[in-house]
Amino acid sequence: MPEYKLTYFDLRGLGEPIRFILSYMGKEFIDNRIPREDWPQFKGKTPFGKVPFLEIGDKVLYQSLAILKYLAPQAGLAGNNPEETLEIDMVVGAYGDLASELSRWIRTENPNDKEKLKETLINETIPFYMSKFETILKNNGGYLANGKLSWAELYVVGHSSSLSGFLGVDLTNKYPFWKELTERVHSLPGIKEWVKKRPDTPF
Amino acid sequence: MPEYKLTYFDLRGLGEPIRFILSYMGKEFIDNRIPREDWPQFKGKTPFGKVPFLEIGDKVLYQSLAILKYLAPQAGLAGNNPEETLEIDMVVGAYGDLASELSRWIRTENPNDKEKLKETLINETIPFYMSKFETILKNNGGYLANGKLSWAELYVVGHSSSLSGFLGVDLTNKYPFWKELTERVHSLPGIKEWVKKRPDTPF
Repeated sequence: MPEYKLTYFDLRGLGEPIRFILSYMGKEFIDNRIPREDWPQFKGKTPFGKVPFLEIGDKVLYQSLAILKYLAPQAGLAGNNPEETLEIDMVVGAYGDLASELSRWIRTENPNDKEKLKETLINETIPFYMSKFETILKNNGGYLANGKLSWAELYVVGHSSSLSGFLGVDLTNKYPFWKELTERVHSLPGIKEWVKKRPDTPF
Repeated sequence: MPEYKLTYFDLRGLGEPIRFILSYMGKEFIDNRIPREDWPQFKGKTPFGKVPFLEIGDKVLYQSLAILKYLAPQAGLAGNNPEETLEIDMVVGAYGDLASELSRWIRTENPNDKEKLKETLINETIPFYMSKFETILKNNGGYLANGKLSWAELYVVGHSSSLSGFLGVDLTNKYPFWKELTERVHSLPGIKEWVKKRPDTPF
């Protein structure tokens, strides 16, 4: 059996969906968390200067969505045909746009702009996306695509607890279908145990 | 035969890779370009408030990467197995990060920050990514993944002429493998004819 080693920061973010899918697959993995202060030295050793990346034996996989898509068929969480895969990819892409907005805010340095961006995120962007997702979940039996569980749910639930944490907003409080989705993913075999034992980080 | 209708702005950007793949597939498509001044009224009619989206008959596909991935197998431009697909998804994701940096710059309003971001893009970010891509191209027989043509090349070449246009930098001038790649993609059947007849826009 090859060794699985995930390298990311000491936070949930884009690493958590990969931790979720590995846990769901019942794979033991090394959860390598780089301290912020080591990042400048470490950055040059990563593919394209970014984390997360996943080592499977001596193979290095980078880009969180590529990693999730690669593992999804092994986990039984991929689409079964091109139409199902399309549905998953579309909703994942839409959530990815929301995640980019979070990252844009995190990276903004000017204090006035940062405050303005945060307000827009909380009062406009998040409500806009969440109302779309609520409708999708409502029309798909509580799932994001094809009326059944896929890696899309692991991705959005794994990441969105960071989004909430960074911004100090509670998505599960305001959005009932999102709450149900979060609880359902957190109850999945493997993920349930992972969520209990994972390091406690604010986001 | 269903009708293909692509809706995007009057620019290359994220729409162009889809125009490329449809042209490569020999599909006639309606190239619907929304004037900037109509966008505020139009935005609410799109899935998730964004373009491009592609109508195939009465089906609406959104998210440019999801659309490209859906069309790729029909075009013979997808990976043939999970490992090939992974290679494509990783390099596409890495280019996507570069594209996000461009979009971050475009959306920055503060003039000082915008100028600083532009300098970073031109002097650091682009050279960093391009040197990585040059190495990949060099080691893969001039391709980005698996040593053969895939939708990854259509995506990066289709989009990067916008990146050059927005920033006023010539990527093909400085990066010989990128230049060769661009020329190769622009010579592909269907794409060759499209590039000749497409509307002349600055980016």
